[in-house]
Amino acid sequence: MYKRLFDVDPWKIKTNQLDKTNKRLQESLTSIGNGYMGMRGNFEEAYSGDTHRGTYIAGVWYPDKTRVGWWKNGYPEYFGKVINAMNFLSMEIQIDGVELDLATNKVENFYLELDMKNGLLTRSFIYHKDDVNIKFEFQRFLSIVQKELCFIQLQIEVLSGNPELVIKSGINGNVKNEDSNYNEMFWEEKQCEVKENHLFLTTETIKNDFNVPRYSVTGMVEHSYSNDFNTTFETKSMQSSEVFSAVLTAGTKVELEKKIAVITSRDIPEEQHVKAAEDILNNYKNETFAQHLARQIEKWRQRWKQADIEISGDDEAQQGIRFNLFQLFSTYYGEDERLNIGPKGFTGEKYGGATYWDTEAYAVPVYLAVAKPEVTKNLLKYRYNQLEGAYLNAQRQGLKGALYPMVTFTGVECHNEWEITFEEIHRNGAMVYAIYNYTTYTGDESYLKNEGLEVIVAVARFWADRVHYSKRNECYMIHGVTGPNEYENNVNNNWYTNTLAVWVLRYAIENLVKYPERQEELDVTEEELAQWKKIVKNMYLPYDEKNKIFIQHDTFLDKDIQPVTNLSEDELPINQNWSWDKILRSCFIKQADVLQGIYFFGDQFTQKEKERNFNFYEPLTVHESSLSASVHAVLAAELGKEEKAVEMYQRTARLDLDNYNNDTQDGLHVTSMTGSWLAIVQGFAGMRTNNGLSFQPFLPKNWEGYNFRVNYQGRLIAINVDTKMTQVDLIEGEDLEITISGSKKLLSVNK
Amino acid sequence: MYKRLFDVDPWKIKTNQLDKTNKRLQESLTSIGNGYMGMRGNFEEAYSGDTHRGTYIAGVWYPDKTRVGWWKNGYPEYFGKVINAMNFLSMEIQIDGVELDLATNKVENFYLELDMKNGLLTRSFIYHKDDVNIKFEFQRFLSIVQKELCFIQLQIEVLSGNPELVIKSGINGNVKNEDSNYNEMFWEEKQCEVKENHLFLTTETIKNDFNVPRYSVTGMVEHSYSNDFNTTFETKSMQSSEVFSAVLTAGTKVELEKKIAVITSRDIPEEQHVKAAEDILNNYKNETFAQHLARQIEKWRQRWKQADIEISGDDEAQQGIRFNLFQLFSTYYGEDERLNIGPKGFTGEKYGGATYWDTEAYAVPVYLAVAKPEVTKNLLKYRYNQLEGAYLNAQRQGLKGALYPMVTFTGVECHNEWEITFEEIHRNGAMVYAIYNYTTYTGDESYLKNEGLEVIVAVARFWADRVHYSKRNECYMIHGVTGPNEYENNVNNNWYTNTLAVWVLRYAIENLVKYPERQEELDVTEEELAQWKKIVKNMYLPYDEKNKIFIQHDTFLDKDIQPVTNLSEDELPINQNWSWDKILRSCFIKQADVLQGIYFFGDQFTQKEKERNFNFYEPLTVHESSLSASVHAVLAAELGKEEKAVEMYQRTARLDLDNYNNDTQDGLHVTSMTGSWLAIVQGFAGMRTNNGLSFQPFLPKNWEGYNFRVNYQGRLIAINVDTKMTQVDLIEGEDLEITISGSKKLLSVNK
Repeated sequence: MYKRLFDVDPWKIKTNQLDKTNKRLQESLTSIGNGYMGMRGNFEEAYSGDTHRGTYIAGVWYPDKTRVGWWKNGYPEYFGKVINAMNFLSMEIQIDGVELDLATNKVENFYLELDMKNGLLTRSFIYHKDDVNIKFEFQRFLSIVQKELCFIQLQIEVLSGNPELVIKSGINGNVKNEDSNYNEMFWEEKQCEVKENHLFLTTETIKNDFNVPRYSVTGMVEHSYSNDFNTTFETKSMQSSEVFSAVLTAGTKVELEKKIAVITSRDIPEEQHVKAAEDILNNYKNETFAQHLARQIEKWRQRWKQADIEISGDDEAQQGIRFNLFQLFSTYYGEDERLNIGPKGFTGEKYGGATYWDTEAYAVPVYLAVAKPEVTKNLLKYRYNQLEGAYLNAQRQGLKGALYPMVTFTGVECHNEWEITFEEIHRNGAMVYAIYNYTTYTGDESYLKNEGLEVIVAVARFWADRVHYSKRNECYMIHGVTGPNEYENNVNNNWYTNTLAVWVLRYAIENLVKYPERQEELDVTEEELAQWKKIVKNMYLPYDEKNKIFIQHDTFLDKDIQPVTNLSEDELPINQNWSWDKILRSCFIKQADVLQGIYFFGDQFTQKEKERNFNFYEPLTVHESSLSASVHAVLAAELGKEEKAVEMYQRTARLDLDNYNNDTQDGLHVTSMTGSWLAIVQGFAGMRTNNGLSFQPFLPKNWEGYNFRVNYQGRLIAINVDTKMTQVDLIEGEDLEITISGSKKLLSVNK
Repeated sequence: MYKRLFDVDPWKIKTNQLDKTNKRLQESLTSIGNGYMGMRGNFEEAYSGDTHRGTYIAGVWYPDKTRVGWWKNGYPEYFGKVINAMNFLSMEIQIDGVELDLATNKVENFYLELDMKNGLLTRSFIYHKDDVNIKFEFQRFLSIVQKELCFIQLQIEVLSGNPELVIKSGINGNVKNEDSNYNEMFWEEKQCEVKENHLFLTTETIKNDFNVPRYSVTGMVEHSYSNDFNTTFETKSMQSSEVFSAVLTAGTKVELEKKIAVITSRDIPEEQHVKAAEDILNNYKNETFAQHLARQIEKWRQRWKQADIEISGDDEAQQGIRFNLFQLFSTYYGEDERLNIGPKGFTGEKYGGATYWDTEAYAVPVYLAVAKPEVTKNLLKYRYNQLEGAYLNAQRQGLKGALYPMVTFTGVECHNEWEITFEEIHRNGAMVYAIYNYTTYTGDESYLKNEGLEVIVAVARFWADRVHYSKRNECYMIHGVTGPNEYENNVNNNWYTNTLAVWVLRYAIENLVKYPERQEELDVTEEELAQWKKIVKNMYLPYDEKNKIFIQHDTFLDKDIQPVTNLSEDELPINQNWSWDKILRSCFIKQADVLQGIYFFGDQFTQKEKERNFNFYEPLTVHESSLSASVHAVLAAELGKEEKAVEMYQRTARLDLDNYNNDTQDGLHVTSMTGSWLAIVQGFAGMRTNNGLSFQPFLPKNWEGYNFRVNYQGRLIAINVDTKMTQVDLIEGEDLEITISGSKKLLSVNK
């Protein structure tokens, strides 16, 4: 059922096919980004076929008024959206008066390549009409050296004929979100001018009815070009361009470089935008495309040196993991604590582009290992800074403490499905889990003690109010929740949620005991602590004595329990073939639920317990969430189910490259991209960090070997697994005792 | 917390107050209708203040494209809406160049009266400006003699001054639904002309993307007026008017009568509309407003003779029950089997104006008793004729048989909340219950045997597929439903739903045994029957051994159970003061759920059982559905809880008149209006019809007496209860043995 547009290659996403039917999918897969901004793999020139042009700037969003069929008390007023911003790629080209348009023109030798090693997108083709043949080559990258800069290079070679060429290159602010609730354009023009050979456009988000700031964005363009061209400037509403024209003869090669500086009011007040953009362009005045690219390549080299996973013997797997890491880093590399990892990054509009619990549950462990601790700390601080919004969310539900939102830009909830917004509250526990994860992984307790405990206490207070005491059962319960398995809604006593709630309360108590001065500072009374302890002691955790498994929720076992293998091919995926009613009532699980808890708290359960629960729940799981496979891969590996682990890895690693869920055209599953890393590192290599560092590696049957590096408590460690052995080396840092396949080993540099 | 705009009076809704702040509420309460069309109590002349002009024509609707925040598989493509149709009341008046507009003008002696006895709306006031004083009196009614006709009479008396008067009276098709999903106007003009002194407008609903017919409506106006007026015609886009002008002197009285014929393509093809309208107007050419009104009065007299409930000693109660019956009959009197009883009738737009299960559960028993059996039969046939749509609904959920919709015009589901659309499936049982009710009440088995069994089998097949077998519990269950208590969603084994499903299957089996030829005709196999029997025998019905009560659903008793009296005043109604999350998790019940089942199947439970369940559930019930109080009144009365029964009656009888739920401004709760009748007849008088006819009357403490009449199996029976005794008389029909307060009695005419 999958669709593969690009060739298999260890470092490249490349193809010789211009696939017009799957243009949106191609665009998603060739997205690039630099954490500050990003864009889909759109063509610079006009394209009259089906396409989704999308350029997005991190943290620049608009509160789109909530649209629902039936209002429920507690719904948020708006849904926040990362908005499609000005198109600064735009290079409209006319050849002898005919628009260059790959949807209709005849072209040959088409080639498209995303070079993941260097973050460079290249596209070339030969335009052919009558006696005219012209070779075009576009290259572009978003700088990770200077985040505000985008570089585009266009090289043209006339192979035959004497064509007249007109290139209109500039910025276009007439851009809409495809997912706008009321079909509005979110931007209005502030300035559109040319100043000292720099054309620029400033746009501002339109007024909103909420207490949300308006954002301004300025794009400024500098061109450098071959002498053959005559140029003029053109500005009209929302559009500023420079027009290059020349009549060329066969054999001529010309070049046009476009440097764009993008400034936003997130960093610089609007009135200083023009100066700031000019300053940046002037700073890089003497640096050509090629020169800056060399610096870009060096910086990517450093990232890869740290984070790359090399796989021998399986190029598909190799391409998958690199694509995921590349897109992940293109979305977020931790430079800005005001930002987070949107589920589609800069590659599409679906899900609003904001922040989800995916970050805490799936991305934090990866960034901890492959980037500096500050990167993860910034992710944690993001939530700390939004605590006020989380308090508001809880208050709107009539509850104490803080409820972190399902979807947000500010901490205030944006999402508007009651069964998710009000009920999928396990997300609140993931916030605390990430703090725990950071602390155990890095060994740095300072965050936990300070910002961390403030968040933990706020979340603990939420749980303490959200439970109720069931007199009949003489225990505490949590009713009306949706667990990670979103194919069931409004269930009672979801084991994962209850387990997480208890763990949060216990972790809060533990750390208040450890840091008693914080108890007073955070106004935690003894009564409150006593109540938390009572809840911890008396929380109901559904357990089935017969099968000796944890029960997903109260009435799960009353269902018609049957394995996914009972379903016929044409029923899968059930989310596209079944009614919602049928899905909800079925036993089929979208993503790890009980197993998510066992994954989080792996050290609290015996192998037998893990095995029984895995054997019970995995066969019921359809993995229709992109977040499911990785957890299953890790647990399967731990339980020695190597084949299952590999199957699950394959599902997560090439989810987008092979368009498994048939929705990658809407954008990449960015937050799920951590899954393939988790599958290899925590799965195949069995890395655990709950109690010191340990590995329990195996080598997938079809692989010849794999190696990767991780940061751990100030060390850099290299792991190499091949057919013969597992080699773990300390590259940097002090000696460290680790466990490999059950045996202790002391690591030292150069030993 | 209630708001009462109108004076208490046994037959009238009247006031001397022009209440501009509550204009919408006034408009709802002075709505009139004749089953064919109806309108809110709008003023004929311009009104610049807050108002909701609404004229609705039965069965004329538009499929408004579904609007939801998040799509779920199985959602309908559109939401059907009775649409606001042309405003034919329109009489814009200028006095010396100043627009008559009660929002801004100075007026005195304002009087507004809805005469419920005769279906006549009267409004008068004195306009005052400088030396000019003019008395205006408007009267209007919708004919129940000739359904297409509306009559308006305007009488003007100049008390002082010499005003110049200009009256522009006509039809205006520029009308929008306030609840349009995409802010569209649903109408376009077809013809707007004047023909032989008749002005007319034909409009057609705009194109739709669904397989739904477009409707045309033609309104044609004939004026008759005093000689003082000069007149001209004016037509422009969507507007056709006749303009009357005169300069009048003090003491002059003038009159303007407006007769409107309204034709729709439901009855007559569009190309014949003009002729049809002309024919009707010509037929009534020589009948004045007063003459037609006399015939109207006679026809209402017959209705009241049959249906009226007289209450002595409590004018509030008297006004309440009459208001309810008046509005109910104005909405539906059974003339057209293609129609049904919309929840707001012709009085507003909320809820789409279509058909709900309210009809079968709450309206059928009333119409059975107060109108001819054909009226109820038409309600049943309505569902029979929509069976195809019901099959489609089930199929869209991946289920067999037929699922009657939550909201519909055609049988195809319109509603789009998954927890209601997909889950509030108990409605499907109510369809069968209504057939049972009709059959026992009238003694006529022909409908049951023919159309009825086809519906019953289709619904039985749905239930047989919708249950699942729980291996663990060795019984059948129904998961994922919403019971009548909509303050809980997606629950398992709702006792009411399970009970109703079993009852439907049993009733289907019984009647297939009774009419074996139907089994073959309806292709019911022996295997199918055997499966139904298995389900009937093994259905799980939650029961609590400790309290010896039926359990509302699986985990209801795990909640924090506490009485409504624990809530503070400012928390009520909880649907306006609590988050949806809090409501769902609470034990508070919106409307009778277990008790609804006990009400339906009263003969299956002992008094002790009824009492235990009533005593358990009633204190948890907030009655925030307008359908709750009546069921509680009936059961309370049966259990001798007279005070509670009266309290519940009061709540249902004056729900709109006293605006208890603070939402009557959006329209009247038409389908709930049956509740006060049920409370008196089944409650206070204890009428039962499950096994013959019986009464068990009591007299509410503050009343001096009450009397009413019912049809029963071809007889007309009068019941009179006063402080001394209960008198039951047979007015028409053959002798009948009935039970009064436990004793048998043979009724004969004139005995």
